[in-house]
Amino acid sequence: MEDTVADDPFGIREGEVTIALPAQFDASVYFIGRIRTPWTRREDCPKNGRESTAVCTIEVEPRYAAALTGVESCSHLLVLYWMDKARRDLVLQVPRHYGEQRGTFALRSPARPNPIAASVVTLLQIADNRLSVIGLDCLDGTPLIDLKPYFASTDAFPDAVVGWHKARKG
Amino acid sequence: MEDTVADDPFGIREGEVTIALPAQFDASVYFIGRIRTPWTRREDCPKNGRESTAVCTIEVEPRYAAALTGVESCSHLLVLYWMDKARRDLVLQVPRHYGEQRGTFALRSPARPNPIAASVVTLLQIADNRLSVIGLDCLDGTPLIDLKPYFASTDAFPDAVVGWHKARKG
Repeated sequence: MEDTVADDPFGIREGEVTIALPAQFDASVYFIGRIRTPWTRREDCPKNGRESTAVCTIEVEPRYAAALTGVESCSHLLVLYWMDKARRDLVLQVPRHYGEQRGTFALRSPARPNPIAASVVTLLQIADNRLSVIGLDCLDGTPLIDLKPYFASTDAFPDAVVGWHKARKG
Repeated sequence: MEDTVADDPFGIREGEVTIALPAQFDASVYFIGRIRTPWTRREDCPKNGRESTAVCTIEVEPRYAAALTGVESCSHLLVLYWMDKARRDLVLQVPRHYGEQRGTFALRSPARPNPIAASVVTLLQIADNRLSVIGLDCLDGTPLIDLKPYFASTDAFPDAVVGWHKARKG
């Protein structure tokens, strides 16, 4: 689901706009594990998690192992991870494969004020503190920040529309 | 979607287990806005966003206003927010309305190592940098950390099952 901003992660394309970020942060996160994927270069990553059937491994730090109790009963999980290579000051972006200017909050680009990605994965197996999943699109070694059970009742909106994307495809 | 841990936000119930958190954080976030809701006490919040039809307001800081370009074309958004009142060291919890011990990563409780909540909302309207939405369950004044377009193609899994929850209901 993550769009690349540029081949050079520090580069800005024509039409992209940056802002001055606040001088101070407001809160902090722990990296609670790492995501192991087959992709070590950004250009090799699938465009989104549904484009790949690759099995990836989520390694949760042993410190948090007990927090996985009950996760094995979930068919799908919401995974939050930290896109640590992305710049944070872009408000307007020109994704490479769209070529049109969009606001950061209308995109799933990793470049955003808080570079947190959210992906839904299919859970295959848990062994100790390692989860085998399908549905990730990120670089090998990406820091994990949260795992949540995916509830169809509150998380699934099959009729949702992203108008700019639909218009583009139509 | 957020379960309360205890009436006293610093309290621990019988059966709950804490860990020692790491000595240092790994990354930091900006609060990019605030969420305005009708609820000022935790016990008044709906159990999850689908339990309420209340219209809430997401106020994005003017600094990030340009990043909303294109968001108006989205029917649904994924909202990430910071549950700043929650404790972060619980790995096993006993949610009040379930009464059974579960791992933190099998729950949507605000108490987690990184207290980031994820909710899908229906977008009603955007005026300047204020979004009117339905589907939130959090306290008034909750810090906003991200807005993302919700793509049914990658985010909607209507057949997903949370086994422990289904077993409990059945």
